[in-house]
Amino acid sequence: MNISTKLDEYNNQGKTFYSFEFFPPKTDFGLDNLYSRIDRMASLGPAYIDITWGAGGSTADKTFEMSKTIQKYFGLDVMMHLTCTNMPSDSIKKILSDAQKNNISNILALRGDPPDGSSAWKKNDSGFNYGADLVKFIRKEHGNNFFLGVGAYPETHQEQKNADLDISYLKEKVDAGADIIVTQLFYDVKNFLLFRDKCSQAGINIPIIPGIMPIHNYARFIKFTQFCKVSIPNSVSDALELIKNDDSSVIDYGIEQASNMCEKLIEEGVPGLHFYTLNLEHSVTEILSTLDLVSTHKSNRVLPWRQSTLDQRKLSEDVRPIFWSNRPVSYLTRTETWDDFPNGRWGDISSPTFGELNQYHAIRAGSQSDKVKARRRKLWGEPISIKEISDVFVSFCKGKINSLPWCETPLAIESKQILDDLVALNQEGYFTINSQPKVGGLPSEDPNFGWGAKGGKVFQKAYLEFFTSKDNLDRLVLRLDELNDISYQALSFDGDLISNLSENNVNAVTWGVFPGQGILQPTIVDARSFLIWKDEAFGLWINDWASIYKTNSDSYNLLHQIHDTHYLVNIVDNDFIDGNMIKHILEK
Amino acid sequence: MNISTKLDEYNNQGKTFYSFEFFPPKTDFGLDNLYSRIDRMASLGPAYIDITWGAGGSTADKTFEMSKTIQKYFGLDVMMHLTCTNMPSDSIKKILSDAQKNNISNILALRGDPPDGSSAWKKNDSGFNYGADLVKFIRKEHGNNFFLGVGAYPETHQEQKNADLDISYLKEKVDAGADIIVTQLFYDVKNFLLFRDKCSQAGINIPIIPGIMPIHNYARFIKFTQFCKVSIPNSVSDALELIKNDDSSVIDYGIEQASNMCEKLIEEGVPGLHFYTLNLEHSVTEILSTLDLVSTHKSNRVLPWRQSTLDQRKLSEDVRPIFWSNRPVSYLTRTETWDDFPNGRWGDISSPTFGELNQYHAIRAGSQSDKVKARRRKLWGEPISIKEISDVFVSFCKGKINSLPWCETPLAIESKQILDDLVALNQEGYFTINSQPKVGGLPSEDPNFGWGAKGGKVFQKAYLEFFTSKDNLDRLVLRLDELNDISYQALSFDGDLISNLSENNVNAVTWGVFPGQGILQPTIVDARSFLIWKDEAFGLWINDWASIYKTNSDSYNLLHQIHDTHYLVNIVDNDFIDGNMIKHILEK
Repeated sequence: MNISTKLDEYNNQGKTFYSFEFFPPKTDFGLDNLYSRIDRMASLGPAYIDITWGAGGSTADKTFEMSKTIQKYFGLDVMMHLTCTNMPSDSIKKILSDAQKNNISNILALRGDPPDGSSAWKKNDSGFNYGADLVKFIRKEHGNNFFLGVGAYPETHQEQKNADLDISYLKEKVDAGADIIVTQLFYDVKNFLLFRDKCSQAGINIPIIPGIMPIHNYARFIKFTQFCKVSIPNSVSDALELIKNDDSSVIDYGIEQASNMCEKLIEEGVPGLHFYTLNLEHSVTEILSTLDLVSTHKSNRVLPWRQSTLDQRKLSEDVRPIFWSNRPVSYLTRTETWDDFPNGRWGDISSPTFGELNQYHAIRAGSQSDKVKARRRKLWGEPISIKEISDVFVSFCKGKINSLPWCETPLAIESKQILDDLVALNQEGYFTINSQPKVGGLPSEDPNFGWGAKGGKVFQKAYLEFFTSKDNLDRLVLRLDELNDISYQALSFDGDLISNLSENNVNAVTWGVFPGQGILQPTIVDARSFLIWKDEAFGLWINDWASIYKTNSDSYNLLHQIHDTHYLVNIVDNDFIDGNMIKHILEK
Repeated sequence: MNISTKLDEYNNQGKTFYSFEFFPPKTDFGLDNLYSRIDRMASLGPAYIDITWGAGGSTADKTFEMSKTIQKYFGLDVMMHLTCTNMPSDSIKKILSDAQKNNISNILALRGDPPDGSSAWKKNDSGFNYGADLVKFIRKEHGNNFFLGVGAYPETHQEQKNADLDISYLKEKVDAGADIIVTQLFYDVKNFLLFRDKCSQAGINIPIIPGIMPIHNYARFIKFTQFCKVSIPNSVSDALELIKNDDSSVIDYGIEQASNMCEKLIEEGVPGLHFYTLNLEHSVTEILSTLDLVSTHKSNRVLPWRQSTLDQRKLSEDVRPIFWSNRPVSYLTRTETWDDFPNGRWGDISSPTFGELNQYHAIRAGSQSDKVKARRRKLWGEPISIKEISDVFVSFCKGKINSLPWCETPLAIESKQILDDLVALNQEGYFTINSQPKVGGLPSEDPNFGWGAKGGKVFQKAYLEFFTSKDNLDRLVLRLDELNDISYQALSFDGDLISNLSENNVNAVTWGVFPGQGILQPTIVDARSFLIWKDEAFGLWINDWASIYKTNSDSYNLLHQIHDTHYLVNIVDNDFIDGNMIKHILEK
């Protein structure tokens, strides 16, 4: 989606936006890792994500692929970088037309660095020598279809001696039709402000977004600032000098220094902050948290789940089954080909066919690599008893482990409210993979549970999903049948069904009432798509967990045994006011 | 709809059902009057309505027409009587095939009384001499498509001397395929019980429903019991003897006597009670109330409004605009041709076209008669000032007047909860025609507000609709704009719009949350259909009110002036928890 409207909204509401820049990793493992990271960082609420351009060859393809994937599956707007150095105009034409076809609507038009190894940029004959050439070309060929960013150097380009000439080149890019300016990194706010004043004097009126690269590592910091001829204030040099051999102190200092800079920049009224993340997560997350810019608030969510940024899907999709809420990318790939989404009635949720999981595996190409397996063994250990399996789930609940095969991201804030109950359940052998507490009408602005338009009230029925043994299940069903208000469905891998629901039952578990609107009910538990989810959920015991151990090792065998004998159970407590399902389950 | 399933449900739940019998009135005025009465009596919750057969000619056509209309527009199941005396088999064939086409699925198959004036029935050659002939014919021609009732005489048919022979004729009808027996009236429960025992001995096992005719008038009672040779217990004769000249005492006694009889019959386990209403409302209503059989409870409502009994509409219609809630017949006729009903999303509520009002006027053919006009003048007086108009609306709120042009039935129980507020509003010149109080999650079993499946919770936003002057409106808008949570829309006859809504706004004002289900939201305020309703609502000032006075009389002119200058306003208080819209409007 073209981000121009979005940025206008930030501006109208007096809010500072922020964007994250990532570069395409070289390996499948790296890419898989980065996707998980981007998925987590999405919850910080960036206005958009930059993907840098791998000049020439396969890295460029990766830029394109990543941009598409992030828009499609992670619900984030993308600004794709495009450099024109050494590019024939046919290639650029093709990239732009592919971008348009794939709904990539935001481009950062750059000259680009000189080709590998050559120390200085040389003018060539392709017609694309400067950023302005690319901006002109895009506007000529595509009118206003793209939102266009251009780069700028607050401390003058390293190849440029004359600051005024640098500004006049920038002016040329702006006049050619740029919508926004993103600056090179800098560490001295004064220099940025001087640059901004000069731009203003030169008649440059589009937003200028400062580029921030938190200091992560002393050696790299020195190398980079020297290469880019970025000046370092004495205070920064002095501070680093004392800690340069202590990597973690450098990171902490980088967070502090960048936070201070950002604070000043916000005071000076910058419309947004652009973070050069270097594909790292920690520093930017901490900086945003220090600045109190991130609403951990969910209240600016339109729906409880992250919507697609693709127009067609965004407009027509207003309900999702709860089962995939911890594996949204899997859900998105499996429903990618749907023309229609189940609507408010969702009687026909099963009418479009759920796609196969192989599409998902194509995106997560690196997820079966030895590196991933090793990392998982480190996370989940080598459990050889039900008690040790239980410990893994408990550790996840307590935040000691940040993923499980069924949960790509840590436990949601909502579920943390029932943390003690979840821990107790897992200790009793109910291996929880999804849950939400009941909510009986909180304001739509509520920091944890809120979503949708202002002034509304949101509601939830308590939901619980877990694997458990047949013995546990039998005891549970006796207990559940004592309550009136419980809907449950339990399935073994081989399809044995124990349930008090009709086969096409659909239960709304999250809904909201808003001023002047109908009731929205975006999350449902529907009996038919549980059958689809069940295959995926059981598969993860084997594909994502057992497979990380040696065949026929104790852990391998234990996980296979659980897969073969346990039941996947979902339970809804329909009493969203007074219900107390978990307590009832846990009562001796 | 075939009532067999419904009667089975009553039986399974151990509930006694009741049915009301009406006959086709001779005049359009009478018919219009009766439709209003049936509409009111529908709220007593009869299992079905009997319409007697006008043997031969126009009255038979009326039977058919009434049966269709009551099913289609009043949401009641109908058992249509059909007599075969002097009917050629071609006519009967045609009637049955017409009945089937029009979804009339329940028939009381009768021999019928002898033609007018002839004192005794004579066998004829048409082949239809007895009820059994008709039952056999229907089963032969239509299999089990119809639910079939037959008549019976607990005290032996007046033409029959031999009670045993009478029972054997009944057995013949039952063997021919009758589903239910409805008896002739009686006043001695002992005789009914003896008859029932004899039926049982004769192997008659289908339900036997006692026919109850409350005593309304002494002279008619004597004439009728003599004609039908119905025995009168001494206790009844003695009681009536003392009060026979006091009509109202006779009516009161009739209610008491019938109530006692019904109580005994219920104790004796009759499955249902059939009331010969003689097109009267009072006695039956009182008897049912004495017996405590009627749930004034709404809790057995599937939706807050009375559903259609026609299958297609019943299955596909789950939302209605609130505007027509006091004129359901008008809404039903205007939407009769719709193939699709707006569904849970109702984005497209205006896509099917609302039909014209002339269909409605066809049903209410007598509504413009002089008799109706005279009755209305008696109801609404001859107001010549805004104050006197205000008095009419206040009288309606207080139940002194049981209809207004916009309200075909008295104020709903729900609105009575805000009665004092409504009176105050009308005294201030806000002429209220529709309203509901807010409800923040009452059980679906709530006697006043409940609807839908058991164990649910129902919600409402407060709603108010009224006519008022431009001055009042201007003051009101200032007040409403002080509140955050109000949606309003005001329209003058000539289309001047004052509103804080978008033109396609849709607001759910009644919804329910049920165990294991999605949220149902059956009543909406939608901005676009308000434009349609507005024409109808303004039209009623002229067509139903001004028209009852002489042209250019003071009342006539006053009503025209209101029509020309007032605004029709709807207001929703979106705060269904703490909102207090009316108090805010009324605050000085």
